Amino acid sequence: MRDRAKERRQIMIPDTLETSNRPYEECGVVGIWGAPDAAALAALGLHALQHRGQEAAGIVSHDSERFCQHKGLGLVGDVFSDARVMATLKGKSAIGHNRYATTGGTLLRNVQPLYADFEFGGLAVAHNGNLTNAATLRQALVKRGCLFQSTTDTEVFVHLIAISLYATVLERLVDAAKQVKGAYSVLALAPEFLVGLRDPLGVRPLILGRTADGGWMLASETCALDIVGAEFVRNVEPGEMVIIDNDGVRSMRPFAQTSPRFCVFEYIYFARPDSILENHSVYEARKQIGVELARESGVEADVIVPVPDSGVPSAMGFAAESGIPFEMGIIRNHYVGRTFIEPTDQIRNLGVRMKHSANTPVLQGKRVVLVDDSIVRGTTSRKIVDMVRAAGATEVHMRISSPPTKHPCFYGIDTPEESQLLAATHSIEEMAEAIGVDSLAFISFDGLYRALGHDDRTGAEGRYCDACFTGDYPIELVDKEGRLVA
Amino acid sequence: MRDRAKERRQIMIPDTLETSNRPYEECGVVGIWGAPDAAALAALGLHALQHRGQEAAGIVSHDSERFCQHKGLGLVGDVFSDARVMATLKGKSAIGHNRYATTGGTLLRNVQPLYADFEFGGLAVAHNGNLTNAATLRQALVKRGCLFQSTTDTEVFVHLIAISLYATVLERLVDAAKQVKGAYSVLALAPEFLVGLRDPLGVRPLILGRTADGGWMLASETCALDIVGAEFVRNVEPGEMVIIDNDGVRSMRPFAQTSPRFCVFEYIYFARPDSILENHSVYEARKQIGVELARESGVEADVIVPVPDSGVPSAMGFAAESGIPFEMGIIRNHYVGRTFIEPTDQIRNLGVRMKHSANTPVLQGKRVVLVDDSIVRGTTSRKIVDMVRAAGATEVHMRISSPPTKHPCFYGIDTPEESQLLAATHSIEEMAEAIGVDSLAFISFDGLYRALGHDDRTGAEGRYCDACFTGDYPIELVDKEGRLVA
Amino acid sequence: MRDRAKERRQIMIPDTLETSNRPYEECGVVGIWGAPDAAALAALGLHALQHRGQEAAGIVSHDSERFCQHKGLGLVGDVFSDARVMATLKGKSAIGHNRYATTGGTLLRNVQPLYADFEFGGLAVAHNGNLTNAATLRQALVKRGCLFQSTTDTEVFVHLIAISLYATVLERLVDAAKQVKGAYSVLALAPEFLVGLRDPLGVRPLILGRTADGGWMLASETCALDIVGAEFVRNVEPGEMVIIDNDGVRSMRPFAQTSPRFCVFEYIYFARPDSILENHSVYEARKQIGVELARESGVEADVIVPVPDSGVPSAMGFAAESGIPFEMGIIRNHYVGRTFIEPTDQIRNLGVRMKHSANTPVLQGKRVVLVDDSIVRGTTSRKIVDMVRAAGATEVHMRISSPPTKHPCFYGIDTPEESQLLAATHSIEEMAEAIGVDSLAFISFDGLYRALGHDDRTGAEGRYCDACFTGDYPIELVDKEGRLVA
Amino acid sequence: MRDRAKERRQIMIPDTLETSNRPYEECGVVGIWGAPDAAALAALGLHALQHRGQEAAGIVSHDSERFCQHKGLGLVGDVFSDARVMATLKGKSAIGHNRYATTGGTLLRNVQPLYADFEFGGLAVAHNGNLTNAATLRQALVKRGCLFQSTTDTEVFVHLIAISLYATVLERLVDAAKQVKGAYSVLALAPEFLVGLRDPLGVRPLILGRTADGGWMLASETCALDIVGAEFVRNVEPGEMVIIDNDGVRSMRPFAQTSPRFCVFEYIYFARPDSILENHSVYEARKQIGVELARESGVEADVIVPVPDSGVPSAMGFAAESGIPFEMGIIRNHYVGRTFIEPTDQIRNLGVRMKHSANTPVLQGKRVVLVDDSIVRGTTSRKIVDMVRAAGATEVHMRISSPPTKHPCFYGIDTPEESQLLAATHSIEEMAEAIGVDSLAFISFDGLYRALGHDDRTGAEGRYCDACFTGDYPIELVDKEGRLVA
Repeated sequence: MRDRAKERRQIMIPDTLETSNRPYEECGVVGIWGAPDAAALAALGLHALQHRGQEAAGIVSHDSERFCQHKGLGLVGDVFSDARVMATLKGKSAIGHNRYATTGGTLLRNVQPLYADFEFGGLAVAHNGNLTNAATLRQALVKRGCLFQSTTDTEVFVHLIAISLYATVLERLVDAAKQVKGAYSVLALAPEFLVGLRDPLGVRPLILGRTADGGWMLASETCALDIVGAEFVRNVEPGEMVIIDNDGVRSMRPFAQTSPRFCVFEYIYFARPDSILENHSVYEARKQIGVELARESGVEADVIVPVPDSGVPSAMGFAAESGIPFEMGIIRNHYVGRTFIEPTDQIRNLGVRMKHSANTPVLQGKRVVLVDDSIVRGTTSRKIVDMVRAAGATEVHMRISSPPTKHPCFYGIDTPEESQLLAATHSIEEMAEAIGVDSLAFISFDGLYRALGHDDRTGAEGRYCDACFTGDYPIELVDKEGRLVA
Repeated sequence: MRDRAKERRQIMIPDTLETSNRPYEECGVVGIWGAPDAAALAALGLHALQHRGQEAAGIVSHDSERFCQHKGLGLVGDVFSDARVMATLKGKSAIGHNRYATTGGTLLRNVQPLYADFEFGGLAVAHNGNLTNAATLRQALVKRGCLFQSTTDTEVFVHLIAISLYATVLERLVDAAKQVKGAYSVLALAPEFLVGLRDPLGVRPLILGRTADGGWMLASETCALDIVGAEFVRNVEPGEMVIIDNDGVRSMRPFAQTSPRFCVFEYIYFARPDSILENHSVYEARKQIGVELARESGVEADVIVPVPDSGVPSAMGFAAESGIPFEMGIIRNHYVGRTFIEPTDQIRNLGVRMKHSANTPVLQGKRVVLVDDSIVRGTTSRKIVDMVRAAGATEVHMRISSPPTKHPCFYGIDTPEESQLLAATHSIEEMAEAIGVDSLAFISFDGLYRALGHDDRTGAEGRYCDACFTGDYPIELVDKEGRLVA
Repeated sequence: MRDRAKERRQIMIPDTLETSNRPYEECGVVGIWGAPDAAALAALGLHALQHRGQEAAGIVSHDSERFCQHKGLGLVGDVFSDARVMATLKGKSAIGHNRYATTGGTLLRNVQPLYADFEFGGLAVAHNGNLTNAATLRQALVKRGCLFQSTTDTEVFVHLIAISLYATVLERLVDAAKQVKGAYSVLALAPEFLVGLRDPLGVRPLILGRTADGGWMLASETCALDIVGAEFVRNVEPGEMVIIDNDGVRSMRPFAQTSPRFCVFEYIYFARPDSILENHSVYEARKQIGVELARESGVEADVIVPVPDSGVPSAMGFAAESGIPFEMGIIRNHYVGRTFIEPTDQIRNLGVRMKHSANTPVLQGKRVVLVDDSIVRGTTSRKIVDMVRAAGATEVHMRISSPPTKHPCFYGIDTPEESQLLAATHSIEEMAEAIGVDSLAFISFDGLYRALGHDDRTGAEGRYCDACFTGDYPIELVDKEGRLVA
Repeated sequence: MRDRAKERRQIMIPDTLETSNRPYEECGVVGIWGAPDAAALAALGLHALQHRGQEAAGIVSHDSERFCQHKGLGLVGDVFSDARVMATLKGKSAIGHNRYATTGGTLLRNVQPLYADFEFGGLAVAHNGNLTNAATLRQALVKRGCLFQSTTDTEVFVHLIAISLYATVLERLVDAAKQVKGAYSVLALAPEFLVGLRDPLGVRPLILGRTADGGWMLASETCALDIVGAEFVRNVEPGEMVIIDNDGVRSMRPFAQTSPRFCVFEYIYFARPDSILENHSVYEARKQIGVELARESGVEADVIVPVPDSGVPSAMGFAAESGIPFEMGIIRNHYVGRTFIEPTDQIRNLGVRMKHSANTPVLQGKRVVLVDDSIVRGTTSRKIVDMVRAAGATEVHMRISSPPTKHPCFYGIDTPEESQLLAATHSIEEMAEAIGVDSLAFISFDGLYRALGHDDRTGAEGRYCDACFTGDYPIELVDKEGRLVA
């Protein structure tokens, strides 16, 4: 999904200072406690989580005397490429953040972590996810005289901490957490401790690990532990707040217990395949979805071709189950940078293929099954199908490893609004026609849940957030409803 | 004075996020209302006021729909050199700010104007000067839950506006103004009006002008009017708040009436010679100080040589009165940039003269009177005297167009702390020895006041702030005293 | 291979002006004639050829009146990201160049294409490959009074054109071509024509295509045609010089006919899998090598795991032939930028994995066959094997889709000198021990040739250059031998 | 003069690769031999010579093993601001160059010094001045097969060295020098020596000095010695070539002896006032011209006002001689950067005064004599006169410290072509009207020569080049005449 949104060209953004509509962000977070070179570990962790947010990155570290920060627009490797910058990020604790925002407002002042001086001292905060009552809270806070510097949800959280009447930071964190609604994993770094907090339903992931030299690490995914050789300890539980200090890890439970609803789309597309989330291998989950998909929607064909990279494991599962050969019929150019020449009309008409190209010999004269993770607007799918046909495929069948995406996500995954979602306005037959395939099938709900180890969706419905497919939003959409009323 | 402080080398500043000690800033401000290309006019005005602050510049404009801003570190001509940047600063109203800060903390987040979204809408604020109770107010505001993003006095003002219980912006501005103490000229831009406010004593200047196309202009000095061909209308009065909107200029008086105390150092050094402040020509004032100085401390000599640029008018006055020829015996290199190679010890020993060089033919074999505006630490004076002697001067006499600088300024002029001021710890004879001159004399207090059109200081003492010479601080030093107690 | 060389950190390179040892370059070239937006097509083509050189890129275009150029260090998408830059590259003809150099000398003055004003007019030249008598020719040219501005082979070619006594550009090009020895594909752009010249043995590839709007295109690989929707016409033949002008394509044969020797390593590693070179699909060739490798060196195992990305097709072939499941057991992080924080010793000891990470669930408790394209120094292989074992693999077998790399390439592929090549100094058993595998096998020469459609190497030996494996260098190493003597 | 040319806005220059018309350059040069930190000394020297060229700067040093270089567009303080850059410029010898070019072609490849690898080793060359047969020589060299990388005269010199048939570098330098015509001071740095060569007529200056630590220094003006505390030794003589090596300074005389013709405009405008050129103080010369001007063209007036900075000494002389008070009636803004917002028509109509502003109190109601160094196009003079009148001057008289500029300079001073010179097409009365003054007078030829210590021009005509005033060009204009014929 990210890919399509990224296709928009980068423009020169005036710093217009209005409170823009709140962007729906995708993010990754990393926290380190008690490890030498904490900022370097955080930077490496962010690098491993780069797929969760490519537009900006930031780190705040603490060196027992003071906080230091560096933030920038761009990839982690660019923002933190200068050794002199890294040298200023001293200390044995740090939190870091990757950000991807869907609106034009990628301004430096929105880059996390946010830092603030409170009455009780400094605190840095970063979060992955979206608050569903951020606009409502913000309005009340502004009315009270709070000044906002960014348009991020995180700043709402920070102001709630600032005005809390509780005495200690931890109490204030809990106080703030009880007022916000949404899907989030929040990290907060104080001189004395590192806090990790997961929303009551655990929609967004958060992992606890141990670094090789005995420090602690929090991260969105296990792949961030792997890059620095840290060991997986356990998931932070839905609704749990872990407090890490020099005495170790403590746990608090600020919220009433509820059934967890982990985001099923992390498995389908968003997480890295080598991550293990909620004790499931993402790669195995994707492969198994491919197996179920082949069982449900098998088709006579010559080759199974993934739309790389996210379609690869599902295509492998589909191929294994169907017995049809798996081939890399589409090659992805990994050098696509964030900016590139804007094609003129002339160029556009040539059908330029910046990112995917056809591997003609394995497509020519073949009946091709394309396996992709989702169809959002349908424009990219259409281009790929056209390219595969131009390479000589005699039939093109599309198999999708998720149910039709009919509803936007308000919990931290970038999706266009409902009117832009092909599945929201088209039947499957109409979608097939729109993208130009001979047949189109999506995994069924039961198939998806079976692939994740459940009998069917019914029994497991409380297990995942699948609102983008079902419209069953497990967390109240306060701002959205307020807006409709107003 | 600025020159000496500037000699420190530019270093890579980590963004350390602590509330640093409040920097004592020198600044220039410009405001435009009702003129096409308001931001361009503001940029030109800031360019004319570049001598008031060279480290950063910023402009916020309003185009009847929204606020736009651009800020950067560096000279006005660098920060606003990109035509695409200027094109984003749309609208017929704007405020701009030049900044020079004495601490390491020249961070982008400190660059003014500051903009904030309030309950009642957006407001941009810029100010020249220093609040003397900023730290005290800040502490109270943080305690209340206010989050600070910068370390500037201006943000204190902005928070006071935000939390004011009054209904209208103007009432809130007045409410905030009544709580702050200090020397300041504040500009505030709202969609509906531009406000200019001068502190009760009028320590810092603020000028009202009219642009050629009928708009209004506020600026720190008249030279900012001149550059854009705007006409001088009048000084904003000490303690006056002018409100400029499409109906013209209104005036409010938020404070009890007191005797004004304009900064005498603006005349001696800080302001541009072609500016007219409080109805006195800066150039004529300086020349007249030179005349008085010659009367008081004449000396037999062959040439009168100014330390350029600020010593030129006084030296001319001195020469005219004494009948000794005026010569440009020291040449200033105006290409000194903000950064340059840091001399190695090797280089340092050569006695490198980056900024001033001796014009040997007019110094060799001569008895030289050097005229300068002030002696701060004495190090630059020593270097210049040594250079003049090395060029062959047989005698070197130093005449200073201000009284000895014995006390730091807390009202917006950058001065080192008292222990660093040569005059605070040395008698005049000891100073003469320290800088290596055959004789040294400063203008007397009475001579200074006579040059400004008064009989002597006694009668006019309420007329100027001369605390840097007398230690008579007319505005309470709340933070400083608080600190001493604590 | 490139990956390993890229691991060196980027340093600040002084521009030391000596004639450094000639770098062995890897490159990609694109030429356009008679197509609107020629420079944009060239940039897109270079983007598709980014894998052939990531350190610098340049384009020279001609707009019927004058030549325009832009060059820069970095990826194509960065060098040509500014629309204003593209707008300056006017005209319907252009040549472009991607560069990867193995020495520190990536200086802007070395970035191609090179442009020169000759007696007869301007000419821009770019080339992929290496001349083996460049140093010798350069020495003679300098002796004659020629001034060199770069350290590239291309400039030797350009000087030979400049001093040729022939009258026309084409005759001078041929004259120059007859004096150089080496492996190269040269493009030359004059106002009147575009020339493509391939070395007599055709070691490096060059492809002719037709753009959608009737222009002509030359490129290193077919994937550069695909990205702009251009149609493959034919390979430029070994030793052929094609001249493209408004009358179409003419062909000249400046050299005596010899047996062609296309670089076999283009198939194994260097070219993009979706390219078709010398009428062979690179992807199919790699897959078939995997098949042959499985036949020759099968091993009992649980999973076949490619070292991504280049090992993927061979691993697929190996898996298909062996019947052992293919799994993506290693995940590659494609966000690795060109620069990144340099790990401290602390960090280094953690075993940081910037580029590859283990997909633990498919490795744990498994007997793993890793398939990679080559072993150069062995250091990367060792790291990957260690990582796979750390993920719980019970056995690790390595299969390599090329024969042992025992000799450096002097013809345009970046390889370290012989002493650094693991296979040059170790037996296969010793290599296995060095990289820590349970077994190690390379494809045999006959197996490699069979995979490419020949019975065995004997009959086809004249078909490919395989000097890096055999030491059988088909083009005289003039400089090298001269150096050994001297 | 420079100021007016600089008023053109900076634009984005496509690198168009044509041999543009040779720019007429103004430059400064510095050479160091046998001094630690030679590059730092060179940078400081260039900084002191910044007035001779502000568009680009470069240094080549030699550290007994190799040459190192750094070049950039911009001021010396910007190009050499990075300590890491300076650290790469090792060694005890160096040459440096400042450049100002009048055409759009300020490209990095034109920035001097130029370095080349010759048969005999490396050589770096920098020069101040212009060759009058550069185009003619270049044409012949290109015909011979020489490839040019820049459009500078210096490269012609370098190619002549390269193709010389003489054996040693010195012989080749002499051989090249004998072929070029023009006004120049050339520095050449080889590993074994530093050479300084002045053209036969000595039109451009070159000074020899001794650094404090016993090294040698060559520079365009004495002010470059002063900044590093070096001692003046002597002028390099017209037509002299000095060779500096570890044995000291030798002298050669490659040319037939002729009467020297030092550029009189160096005294009038170009050189720095504190420099001593050809044993005359520039400052004293200017003051004396003012004296002569007052004698010749006295006028009843209230104030003498210089157009700063170059008009200051002449105005002082004029005031002293006439007895009319000298006043700084025009203030110059020294912060004018190299780039700034381009005024819209709106802004332009306001009569923006970026560089000069009126000091109204000393002009209002006064009869003003403005003293300036020259009138070129007349546009700046007109603006200044208008500004002075707008400030209330009742009469404005203009006195110019040079004769009317009627002819372009081909010898290294930037002047527009003849048709653009106001004095070439207007009588003095017409000029007075054009610039709007009540009276206008120029120094007479005899007055100018008297000020420089001669009885009149007749006797001293062979002493200076005054071609810009007289059209008497002492060096053949080979290219110009060739062009007229062709």
